Amino acid sequence: MSYNLLKGKRGIVFGALDDKSIAWKIAEKAYEEGAIITLSNTATAIRFGQIDELAKKCNAEIITADATNTDDLQHVFERSMEVLGGKIDFVLHSIGMSLNVRKKRVYNDVNYNYFDKTLDISAISFHKMLQVAFKLDAINEWGSVVALSYIAAQRSLYGYNDMADAKALLESIARSFGYIYGREKNVRVNTISQSPTLTTAGSGVKGVGSLLDFTERMSPLGNADAKECADYAVTLFSDLTRKVTMQNLFHDGGFSNMGMSYSAMSVYDKNLDSSLDL
Amino acid sequence: MSYNLLKGKRGIVFGALDDKSIAWKIAEKAYEEGAIITLSNTATAIRFGQIDELAKKCNAEIITADATNTDDLQHVFERSMEVLGGKIDFVLHSIGMSLNVRKKRVYNDVNYNYFDKTLDISAISFHKMLQVAFKLDAINEWGSVVALSYIAAQRSLYGYNDMADAKALLESIARSFGYIYGREKNVRVNTISQSPTLTTAGSGVKGVGSLLDFTERMSPLGNADAKECADYAVTLFSDLTRKVTMQNLFHDGGFSNMGMSYSAMSVYDKNLDSSLDL
Amino acid sequence: MSYNLLKGKRGIVFGALDDKSIAWKIAEKAYEEGAIITLSNTATAIRFGQIDELAKKCNAEIITADATNTDDLQHVFERSMEVLGGKIDFVLHSIGMSLNVRKKRVYNDVNYNYFDKTLDISAISFHKMLQVAFKLDAINEWGSVVALSYIAAQRSLYGYNDMADAKALLESIARSFGYIYGREKNVRVNTISQSPTLTTAGSGVKGVGSLLDFTERMSPLGNADAKECADYAVTLFSDLTRKVTMQNLFHDGGFSNMGMSYSAMSVYDKNLDSSLDL
Amino acid sequence: MSYNLLKGKRGIVFGALDDKSIAWKIAEKAYEEGAIITLSNTATAIRFGQIDELAKKCNAEIITADATNTDDLQHVFERSMEVLGGKIDFVLHSIGMSLNVRKKRVYNDVNYNYFDKTLDISAISFHKMLQVAFKLDAINEWGSVVALSYIAAQRSLYGYNDMADAKALLESIARSFGYIYGREKNVRVNTISQSPTLTTAGSGVKGVGSLLDFTERMSPLGNADAKECADYAVTLFSDLTRKVTMQNLFHDGGFSNMGMSYSAMSVYDKNLDSSLDL
Repeated sequence: MSYNLLKGKRGIVFGALDDKSIAWKIAEKAYEEGAIITLSNTATAIRFGQIDELAKKCNAEIITADATNTDDLQHVFERSMEVLGGKIDFVLHSIGMSLNVRKKRVYNDVNYNYFDKTLDISAISFHKMLQVAFKLDAINEWGSVVALSYIAAQRSLYGYNDMADAKALLESIARSFGYIYGREKNVRVNTISQSPTLTTAGSGVKGVGSLLDFTERMSPLGNADAKECADYAVTLFSDLTRKVTMQNLFHDGGFSNMGMSYSAMSVYDKNLDSSLDL
Repeated sequence: MSYNLLKGKRGIVFGALDDKSIAWKIAEKAYEEGAIITLSNTATAIRFGQIDELAKKCNAEIITADATNTDDLQHVFERSMEVLGGKIDFVLHSIGMSLNVRKKRVYNDVNYNYFDKTLDISAISFHKMLQVAFKLDAINEWGSVVALSYIAAQRSLYGYNDMADAKALLESIARSFGYIYGREKNVRVNTISQSPTLTTAGSGVKGVGSLLDFTERMSPLGNADAKECADYAVTLFSDLTRKVTMQNLFHDGGFSNMGMSYSAMSVYDKNLDSSLDL
Repeated sequence: MSYNLLKGKRGIVFGALDDKSIAWKIAEKAYEEGAIITLSNTATAIRFGQIDELAKKCNAEIITADATNTDDLQHVFERSMEVLGGKIDFVLHSIGMSLNVRKKRVYNDVNYNYFDKTLDISAISFHKMLQVAFKLDAINEWGSVVALSYIAAQRSLYGYNDMADAKALLESIARSFGYIYGREKNVRVNTISQSPTLTTAGSGVKGVGSLLDFTERMSPLGNADAKECADYAVTLFSDLTRKVTMQNLFHDGGFSNMGMSYSAMSVYDKNLDSSLDL
Repeated sequence: MSYNLLKGKRGIVFGALDDKSIAWKIAEKAYEEGAIITLSNTATAIRFGQIDELAKKCNAEIITADATNTDDLQHVFERSMEVLGGKIDFVLHSIGMSLNVRKKRVYNDVNYNYFDKTLDISAISFHKMLQVAFKLDAINEWGSVVALSYIAAQRSLYGYNDMADAKALLESIARSFGYIYGREKNVRVNTISQSPTLTTAGSGVKGVGSLLDFTERMSPLGNADAKECADYAVTLFSDLTRKVTMQNLFHDGGFSNMGMSYSAMSVYDKNLDSSLDL
């Protein structure tokens, strides 16, 4: 079902890998809602993922780019304006990676080259995207830029490692650039803080199943999935949310404002009864 | 222009007075987006406002009710289900009043009967609305309830008086009932924290013009007006935001995350230069 | 061990019941740190608690008062200034009670008379205390007022009921009056958001043991106990924190900024493994 | 006047330059309160500042170090334990610098090498400090680590540039490492978010005078100065705040929770009247 919420709008979606990706779902949904889009990802991701399939479905050109490279980013914006026929109305940033996580370097034994890379790929790339777009004047007035974040930016979760710091930096960049881009061009910049979502990138992480169960039970509406995130994202790209900017918006079934739910405690407690003596 | 975002949905709008009211704009917009609605306000507000005009425009029945009275609220929900032909999908709470403000009792000299009334009218009425609806099972699964709030719930503004406390209480009720209503019925409950908006109720307040100028200059996108708030509200009533709950959502052009803008400081500074000796 | 942090200071401690009370520990610690104090509680609490014992230990007069009654509060301040020999330097508000909790009325079926009482006793009493003190000019310049709060003001915990809303209102009053009292008299007003603490009042609540275990494991430093809260409170009463005001200060071993700890998840997970099929 | 709050404690103070530095005042105050300390700064800062004078006053050894270099940091901790005679009880991180600010590169035209340096010097150095200390097991159980931050981490202030992002990252690192260090060694990690303070580093910034006037008038207790910050810092180093961790603590006279004060608006408004036509 489509509302034509994005009819006539031009967008760029960074970070779709396969049909589990949130970016994938957002691209599909934006297309469904009438947008024309381009897709961008790294050469490696394009090779190993199924982005070709998405491109066909959405009638979209794929533009290879390393989002930490400003020349590459400039090419993405220039080429997108060319193939889409005008300035851009919305941009999605769904990019994140930590070598410390991958290489199992714990947070009290990080490798600082990896740490720099985590920040560069997962957060500074967002600044680069915005600065490149700003300099090219590539985004229309009242355009909308969204990056995907996670509650680890506010609260520590074991194992999330330096990605927590990257997300905090990402959200700060959204605020800092949101001020400038809003003031100068009426462009809004926000982050969506999404429920933990089982993507191909995240599925290998140890303990992610238990965490998903916990957040599912803590959230009165359950975890938000990738498809629901896509629904939400298109409202933020639409003309109906023009005065929302510099915000971090929780899309998480209520998790962020829960202290303890009955449902989560009933799992926690069952074990307590049998094994602890408080 | 309509997207039919609320096609087939049934709603109740509390608190429209005249065409400056945010609730008025939300009623109009919801109707435009395909919803069928009822309107509710107090007998006095109905007499002195122009709600009849809105009712005609939106083809809506007006149901008189004192929102602090649970019997009245029960009648609103029952009658609304009757005339709209089924359970309710969305509810707007736009109700607030402080006798301490009206009678110019400052915050360090409040009248406690007035204080109780402020809380009852502006915040507890929201709990009553939710509890009545819950007991009647009057709201459909995945329904959406929104109340209007203001940043005074987080930060002190001179002259806003006990309304600040009422808004903090209102936002807490949204969280507390949001947990229950989400868990039991998948109904979401949120507040919109709106820019200061010149309504008939607010226009008499001394100094409101200067405050509006300040927030206009502090907000990179400028103040959000009532019509823009209506645009935003319909996204929250729509099926695209089903996993957003228990949130206080700033709709304020970025004000909430600004520390100091160049534009506001340039006014402040000019005055400093000419008259102060720091 | 004493630092004489409060040497020469005069304080009033509201809400000590027995030696499990946080207020009790704060009174003891304040006395230890050189303060002279008075104690206040309701007639009923005085009868059923052991406050006489505390009064002896701290060489303090007990002043009976219902903190929802401004005449009673006026008497407490006047009498305290009399017996302590001058204006007051610090005040502790440790008062809270919900009839809805006691009578097992769940949050979606509250009794509104009880709700009003919850707010009056647990939150508005704090405004009354501040307004009475302000009018009497009973607090010295750079005095410090602290109320005890709980994270339920920000995040929903099942079973905490309308006390969550009362704590949100309490924290708002601290901000609102903190602005006025700071501006006019340089008096600071803050709340301490304390770990769940096993007091006589709280010990009967069902499930409190499990919650304490959960928060103990979630908090990197473990739950803060009443004695540690007293240590913290005296720093806030001292001259070393003169520019801290309008804040809600978490004293909780880190709980408030945790998303998930290894220790809590290992309990949750063990149970998951054996009984759930995710 | 001394309370001997830090009697017998060993500390390291990073970042004192001259007697306007907050770190300078904290070193003095810690010494006054009975601590023995070492001082650390870069070779350049030591050459151009007056840290020798401070070292004499506090009977402290100066240890030259570049805080972005883990070898240097290791030397600071090892040498400090040697000269102070044991493990460390408290650490202050007061380090920040942005080449983008210095070279007048605005936020929408930053140099990314400078940006990396800003983050490395102002934020990642804090992680390095903590990781080095952790690996050496150089901090005693219940030790306390504090870094200085600023509200730009939450709210955008024009001209603060990439330092805003650095402070957001710094506060995130405090939370992330606070969890680990708390869990493993009961060491607490916090940030103080201090009022804007006129230091030698900050005094050259254009418009800083106007901002200080604005925040002075917005804060009910006025801006907190460096000496007051030192008072506050010693409470956080003391044994009285053992369960406070992972927090960002506003020490700002109430500024962070103000929306608009009468005093600030009266300056803003005067100009409005004469020059604007709202």
